[in-house]
Amino acid sequence: MNLKDKSLDLHKKYQGKIEIKLKANLTDYEDLAWAYSPGVSEPCIVINDDVRKVYDLTSKSNTVAVITDASAVLGLGKIKPEASLPVMEGKAMLLKRFAGVNAYPLCLNTKSPEEFIAVCEALEPSLGGINLEDIKAPECVFIENELKKRLSIPVFHDDQHGTAIVTLAALINALKLVNKRLEDLVVALCGTGAAGSAIAKLLNKVGVKTIYAYNIDGVVKESLKNDEVVKDLLSNEIIRFKKDAKTLSDIMCGADVFIGVSIGDIVTANMVKSMSDNPIIFALANPIPEINPEIAKSAGAAIIGTGRSDYPNQINNVLAFPGVFKGLLEARISDINDQHYISAAYAIANILNENELSSTHILPSVFDERVVQEVSKSIKKITSS
Amino acid sequence: MNLKDKSLDLHKKYQGKIEIKLKANLTDYEDLAWAYSPGVSEPCIVINDDVRKVYDLTSKSNTVAVITDASAVLGLGKIKPEASLPVMEGKAMLLKRFAGVNAYPLCLNTKSPEEFIAVCEALEPSLGGINLEDIKAPECVFIENELKKRLSIPVFHDDQHGTAIVTLAALINALKLVNKRLEDLVVALCGTGAAGSAIAKLLNKVGVKTIYAYNIDGVVKESLKNDEVVKDLLSNEIIRFKKDAKTLSDIMCGADVFIGVSIGDIVTANMVKSMSDNPIIFALANPIPEINPEIAKSAGAAIIGTGRSDYPNQINNVLAFPGVFKGLLEARISDINDQHYISAAYAIANILNENELSSTHILPSVFDERVVQEVSKSIKKITSS
Repeated sequence: MNLKDKSLDLHKKYQGKIEIKLKANLTDYEDLAWAYSPGVSEPCIVINDDVRKVYDLTSKSNTVAVITDASAVLGLGKIKPEASLPVMEGKAMLLKRFAGVNAYPLCLNTKSPEEFIAVCEALEPSLGGINLEDIKAPECVFIENELKKRLSIPVFHDDQHGTAIVTLAALINALKLVNKRLEDLVVALCGTGAAGSAIAKLLNKVGVKTIYAYNIDGVVKESLKNDEVVKDLLSNEIIRFKKDAKTLSDIMCGADVFIGVSIGDIVTANMVKSMSDNPIIFALANPIPEINPEIAKSAGAAIIGTGRSDYPNQINNVLAFPGVFKGLLEARISDINDQHYISAAYAIANILNENELSSTHILPSVFDERVVQEVSKSIKKITSS
Repeated sequence: MNLKDKSLDLHKKYQGKIEIKLKANLTDYEDLAWAYSPGVSEPCIVINDDVRKVYDLTSKSNTVAVITDASAVLGLGKIKPEASLPVMEGKAMLLKRFAGVNAYPLCLNTKSPEEFIAVCEALEPSLGGINLEDIKAPECVFIENELKKRLSIPVFHDDQHGTAIVTLAALINALKLVNKRLEDLVVALCGTGAAGSAIAKLLNKVGVKTIYAYNIDGVVKESLKNDEVVKDLLSNEIIRFKKDAKTLSDIMCGADVFIGVSIGDIVTANMVKSMSDNPIIFALANPIPEINPEIAKSAGAAIIGTGRSDYPNQINNVLAFPGVFKGLLEARISDINDQHYISAAYAIANILNENELSSTHILPSVFDERVVQEVSKSIKKITSS
């Protein structure tokens, strides 16, 4: 049976991939009395007197929401909110499975970023954090920034920062193998949406000086400044304009690294051949990478990563977000910032020791139990937020 | 250890009374592939093409939200939203424990009924139903009515209709014991908030012709018509005005039934003595009933019910709402109305056979496994909604 049919069959079989479980038994009236009426009024009173106590006495301490407006779901684009629920449930599964974090999958029927923000604000009291998911750019950046200002719980947009963390982790380890330094790199970035812009910002933060970018409008330059996100990237000199560059080929020529978060099959063997020595190719478009890994290899790529599990070096957000939320919740961190992202990226990279690291194994497996432990530790040690 | 300390201790110990549980294992990349990326896109596409399929393929089919604005929590009145979370979690426990229904406890930080309604509308896609909880009157009535109009999932305000269903069930069985008929009753109702108004409406629907009411402003009459809820009750002749009545004593004099959903200790032995023969007393104020059951008994009450588990005849919403939601979800009923409430009340009453029924046992135990089965069946058989 192919994967599509298998997935549909299993979704039908389970009719919901998550459920609620009681942490305490309710077997008699004594249990009802402490857990519900009348005993439950005591924790209510205690929290009402000191609202911080909600973390000690309720599920807020270990519960987040995975929230979407279904405006950019997987490769499907904007779909009905109901249609995004299987993805949000899947994400909730991963948070529980890998980090023990409880998540409510919420697919919002909202019409504007402002409405979306208002709903998240209203939901804050029950939640220890918010994982924003599958919201299109540039709205996702606005929504995230506003929520970070307004809420006192951490807000993490996985499509931006989860992708950026794991891409940086992969790059750190790839550079060990090709003996290059972040500050010397020339990076060609294809795609400047949620993931692309976050990757550019994070690479810039860790010292990458030269990032050229290409998107649906062409090579990113001043004249494309009507895109708010691109405007910010250019004016903050995070993305540079390569003189006379007109095509993706032009910015790839001589580059050390290609990072694609765009669409399938737009990079050719010749474009790889035109890159610097030992080129690194991260072709993350799903399900079809920007270049077939085998073609990239034949063209001389030293290290190739994709978003897929059936090729080596899967650059997979699951390496980051479970441990990120575990760390945020355990340390009760109210805001997450670049320092956390960088710390998490190095934590993921450093899991692999010298013997484990190779050109086809630059990242640990998502089933490697060290991952969530090291990522959560790396988040918790950045306490000044 | 007293109940307050015990409840606080156990809330600290469990730090959240519910958690998320996976319905399927995630042990290898094959599991990730069907449950998450890339296989999950198939159920998304199927739902996007036919949104009704969301019930077959996701947790929506068996998940509700327990939603409050914390404006009328237990006997505490308006508290901070965070402070209401222990109650909502308790309710979520009960829904799972008794009916297998999954519930997300959501305490909203909203400033107006309109905002509250907007959040519920936004949340609709992920939910199979909404249990409104601990919202003050008259806003709760407005919120419920608006949501019933706007949403295509069932909305149930337990403080209104759960209380009304179980009170009616108790009354049905009490009448069997004193040999009276609903249509002949004179009822004195104390309290016309969420519970009181819903009880009055439901009793009227099943044929009770004479309900007098008393509330914080005195005996309910035309001159108190500035209260929207009371205005409706009077203009629809659900509540009648007893000529010359000025006090609670006045409306209790000669009544067959007293129903209190108000405050403790406002009914005296003499007021009970002034009632008709075999008076029925439902003193539901919590934790202190309108009259101590022992005093009521000495004063000649034939049947006494309270809201407390440490006296006989606890009139407890837990008898109703788990089975109500189980029935609504299983039959995919999009709206719930009086016919469902009445059907559920008779189902609860009829669980006890002639041998089981007595003046100190007019309702089944919440741990009686017949309850949720019979209530859900009674809901499912009312399909025209």
